[in-house]
This record gives sequence, C-alpha cells and structure tokens, in this order.
Amino acid sequence: MKLPEFAPIPASLPNTVPFVGPETLQRQRGQAFKARLGANENGFGPSPNAISAMREATTEIWKYGDSTSFDLLNALSGHCRVPVDSIVVGEGIDGLLGLLVRLMLAPGDAVVTSDGAYPTFNFHVAGFGGLLHKVPYRNDAEDPDALLAKAHETGAKLIYLANPDNPMGSWLEGHRIEHLVDQLPQGTLLILDEAYVEFAPATARPRIAADDPRVIRMRTFSKAYGLAGARIGYAIGHPELVSGFERIRNHFGVNRLAQIGALAALQDQEWLQMTCDKVSQARVKIAQIGKANGLVALPSATNFVTLDTGRDGAFARALIPALEAEGVFVRMPGVAPLDRCIRISCAPDAELAVLEAVLPSALKHV
Amino acid sequence: MKLPEFAPIPASLPNTVPFVGPETLQRQRGQAFKARLGANENGFGPSPNAISAMREATTEIWKYGDSTSFDLLNALSGHCRVPVDSIVVGEGIDGLLGLLVRLMLAPGDAVVTSDGAYPTFNFHVAGFGGLLHKVPYRNDAEDPDALLAKAHETGAKLIYLANPDNPMGSWLEGHRIEHLVDQLPQGTLLILDEAYVEFAPATARPRIAADDPRVIRMRTFSKAYGLAGARIGYAIGHPELVSGFERIRNHFGVNRLAQIGALAALQDQEWLQMTCDKVSQARVKIAQIGKANGLVALPSATNFVTLDTGRDGAFARALIPALEAEGVFVRMPGVAPLDRCIRISCAPDAELAVLEAVLPSALKHV
Repeated sequence: MKLPEFAPIPASLPNTVPFVGPETLQRQRGQAFKARLGANENGFGPSPNAISAMREATTEIWKYGDSTSFDLLNALSGHCRVPVDSIVVGEGIDGLLGLLVRLMLAPGDAVVTSDGAYPTFNFHVAGFGGLLHKVPYRNDAEDPDALLAKAHETGAKLIYLANPDNPMGSWLEGHRIEHLVDQLPQGTLLILDEAYVEFAPATARPRIAADDPRVIRMRTFSKAYGLAGARIGYAIGHPELVSGFERIRNHFGVNRLAQIGALAALQDQEWLQMTCDKVSQARVKIAQIGKANGLVALPSATNFVTLDTGRDGAFARALIPALEAEGVFVRMPGVAPLDRCIRISCAPDAELAVLEAVLPSALKHV
Repeated sequence: MKLPEFAPIPASLPNTVPFVGPETLQRQRGQAFKARLGANENGFGPSPNAISAMREATTEIWKYGDSTSFDLLNALSGHCRVPVDSIVVGEGIDGLLGLLVRLMLAPGDAVVTSDGAYPTFNFHVAGFGGLLHKVPYRNDAEDPDALLAKAHETGAKLIYLANPDNPMGSWLEGHRIEHLVDQLPQGTLLILDEAYVEFAPATARPRIAADDPRVIRMRTFSKAYGLAGARIGYAIGHPELVSGFERIRNHFGVNRLAQIGALAALQDQEWLQMTCDKVSQARVKIAQIGKANGLVALPSATNFVTLDTGRDGAFARALIPALEAEGVFVRMPGVAPLDRCIRISCAPDAELAVLEAVLPSALKHV
C-alpha cells in the first residue's frame, strides 16, 4: 500500500521549519530557560484587563468565536481610524501572511523581500509556489530602493517590507515608505509588516490611505500588546482586497479568548504606553550589557536589541548555544553580514540580569 | 490605481461563506438568543480542570504556544494508542481539513463527498481548485458504496466521510468503513471525519492501523470536550502523511491556552463520560419535544438530533427563522431530501425548555 501522492507544490517542499521553538530547545537541553529572550515575546505581559477578560471568558469557551470578530473589528476601526471594511482579523500575522500569499500568488509569480528578513513569509511564498527574489540589507536596514528596483526587474506580485525591521530592529521614516508606494510597479502589492510599529517613533508610520490598493499593512497583538500565545492580528487594506480574505480564510479560526483578550488590550492604551516605556528602558539596559561585553547595540525601534559582536557569523552562531547552555534563549539573523549579530528580546529586569550574569562566560566559552 | 489582481483560483471563488455565525444572527435580530442550539457546540462545557488550567495559564499568554504541541501530542499518543509521529495537532478540524486539501490536491483534482455533508470541507476543496463530485445520502446516512463507486469513476484524490455524520446524526458500523478502505482506488485518500466519535457506539469505530496510508482520521476538542472556542483538534495518519503537514502548517498557529485546555480536558475522561451521558439524555429529551410537536427524531450518534418535519425543504427553511424570532438558534441540512429536517444541538435543560416552549408557536407560524 502506497501513500497517496502529495500535490506537486507540497511535494517539492523541504521538511524544514522556519523556527525551532523555545519549548523544543528546552526539551533538548533537559532544562527550562532562565531567560526567554529569543522570540521577541513581551515578558511585561498584556494589560491586566486582557488577562481578567480572558479568565472570565473561559467559562464560555464551549462557544465558537464570533466568525466576524465584530466587536474587535469595530474597536480597531475606531482606534486606527479606518473603516471596518478595510480591516480583517486573523490568526496573527503569520496566519494573515499565509492567506495573503495564497490570495495573490499563482505558482511561479515573483516575490521580493530582503535577504535575512522574516523567514515565515518566505515559508509561505515557497509553500504556494512563488519565486523569491532577495535584495541585501543596506546599513543593517531594509533597502526600499533595492526592493523597488528588484520588483520592477522581476515583475513582482508582492514586496515584503517590515517596518520596523526584524531581525535588525532598524526602521525607515514614513516618507520613505510613502515614496516606495508611489514608485511601485502597476500590479505590485506592498506588504507592510508593522508587527513592531507600536514601539517605533511616530515618524516611522507612513501616511497611507486605508483604501490605497497598493499596500496592505499587518499588525499584531503578539508584541506590544503581549498576547503572542493568543494568535491574533489584523490587516488593513483596500476593502476589495480585504474582502478577498473572506473567500479563503478559516471563518471560525480565531480563538474566542483571543478575540476577547485583544479587545480588552486595545482598550487599555495606558498599559500599552507603560509597556513601551518599559521596553525602551530595557533596550537601554541591553545596550549597556552589550557594551560592557564589547558588543555594540544597533539602534532599535522594536522590543528587541540587535547586538553587533564585531566578529563574524561563525562567532555569533557559536555564541547562541553557549548562551543556551547558560539558560538564556536568544536568536540571531540568518544571513551574512547580518549574522555577525545576536538578537535579544526586551524583558523584565530579572531576565536581563540573567543575561548580564552569563554573557561574559558565554563569550569566553566561544 | 488598480487593485493588484488575485491569483486565478481565489479570483474565481465566490464571496460566500460556509456558515453565518450565531453572533452575526444575533446582531441582525438585535437580541441575544435564549437557546444556542445551532452549531453543535457543547453547552455542558469542558472539564472544570480544563477551565482552571486555562485560567491559570492566562498569565503566560505573552508566550507563543509550543510549536510542536509536545505535551498534548504525547497525551494523545497514549490516549489513542498510536505513535506520536502519527498525530498532528492543528487549529480544529476546519484548519486541518484546509491543510490536508492543500497538501494533497492539485487544481482540477477530483474529490468525492456526500451531497449535504460538511460545507467547510467543500469550501476548502473549492478554495484549492479541486473538483467536487457529490453522491446522495442513502436512508439519511452517508453511502460508502456510492462514495466508492464515484471515487473509482472520477479517479478521486480524496474521499470525505464523516462518521458519525453531520448534519443527519447517523452513523456507520466500523466494519463498513474498514470495507470501504479495503476497496479504495490506489492513490485515493479517505478523510474520516470523527468530530462526533466520542458520542457514538464503540462499534462505530473502525479498526484502522495508525500507519495505514489510505486513511487520515480527524478528531476535535470542539464537541465532546466542549472547547469549540479554543480551536484545537488533531489528525491521525501515516507518519509520512502527518509529516507533510510540517511543510505547510502555521507552526506557531495553535493558541497556548487551547493546548493547555485540551490537555486537561483529555486527562479528565470521567467528565467526558458524564458529558456523553448528559448528551444522551438530551437526545431523548429533544426527541420527546419533537414527538410532542409531530416531528420525528432520527437516530443520532452525535450531540445533536435531526428532526424530520415530515414536510419539505421550504417548510423547514421557514421554520428556522420562526424559531430564531422566538430566540432559538438552530440549523438545518442544506440539500433535498435532507432539508426536510431541522438539526438541534444537545444542551442543558434550561435551553431545551426554551425550545419546548416556543416550538409549537414557531410551527404554527410557518
């Protein structure tokens, strides 16, 4: 008896996964991490209102979530000042990226991204048979001119740009993105991943009309709002583009507690501001820890700090397991020359103190 | 400025959705339902252990879930007595069906299902460009012989069969499914949707080896375990088939609380048994309510009862809004001759009392 064959595209895909999770790493080392600083989670946690709203709602978990995420959608509409029909709520940016790629991309279509940018986006593009074209970072930042030139050259259907950027923490001023949008080839859609936008200066937010057909923006409750485990995010775009998600999305796919927690988190902007302040302080602290150990912090508009080791990829790649061995989970950029760096998520003092304590010996070990 | 074009398959899809949710219906009528009996949710609720585990875990919601659902996977392995590498955990059966269809189906591939069976499966098949072939129910049950014949005729890549069946509540004995498996065309995969299997007689469970390459079984925590809003389910199949999901699934897509709640629910088999007993009593009660109103209950191995109105689809279709107007949310099969029936989810006494109170006037109204 033979296994029925996979469809051609999945059959051609590797069995690799974009990220090995911290729980898996912990099981491999047989011990829990003392500092969880690798996934850009937000250890300051969500608004206590979000936690209590979710707690209360556990007794209603026997009900499917609202398939339209109506209450959250309306709150987002007010908060972002965009019409309801320009927003779609989904299972985090990861889920929304998968849907968008599926919605837009025919097998063989060209897609442009930066070499070293978000691997999960690349995973989705490969997963739907798209052809990835990568341009290098420039001065540790995504390079809109290079992205644009490559899009014109390849007739790209999609361009992916994260602002602020992950894994470097750098950001572009909003006007540079507005310029990029104005120069897009006809028929190219810009995916603007704003997962970290709440941490960024206001000037990093481009002015883009919600119904601009050339751009879709993605936001999440996983980072600044502290709800990574809830799996909820949203996208803002032209109503016709947004309505396209209705054709393919899993309509009852968003967890009911996630909807309720996200709404409560959104409504507590004071907590968000406090979180951003704490993150800002943690960035300073991480930079200090780096400096004391000869590592240079790159400027960051996110909830992580990318530390330049001043050495090469081989060095940084050896530093990661050395830190893991000491109980500190961190990650690093995947490609040269970015891979001379390690990436540390902002976290409460206790966890940063662990980092501070073990970094010298980990560096010595390498 | 034009919207960049959708890919050909999504461009060809309608904007329709498989189900309008109860929250949407409530907003349309401007009032909450008094009895939520339409989505086969489990109003008896999950194990209190699951609720308290989720409550406790809300403070850890800032962490992504475990991308491998390791603890749950191992518990399922023990519970189902199948190896870990034969199980994949996903965002409910809806999510797993979407992944499976994507994994197996090239555009134009044939798929066989029953006319009136689960619409969300059809939604996924259309969404990936598959060609649906439908065979009629036979005596209000899915007809394995007809499914098989149609699969041979069309060279189907996939056959969908729910056992017990939704929306009729009927079931096949396990040996009939074993026979179906033995007669499958080479290269055809049977999707055995066992969403309701915990409510069914033991004889409805076919003996199928976990590594049988011809079948994938799908199970959920949404029904008997009472966790519909959590969005978590699993599939059992050949290790190579199961590993295929790794190529395309959203690796951090399962909500952390869902993982924790599902594990606690699985470990409380006593609660599950109590739930099944309550469901069984509720089935009797619904049948009595039907009988008192001239509606005949079909035998059910699920947590709902399908009531035969003895009239036609037009009658039943008018009865649904009449019940909604009285505050009772129910659904009905979509196609003739099944659509002479309405489908009532099992629920606690208070909700069934509402049904009992309003059914006579709703019937009179039609």
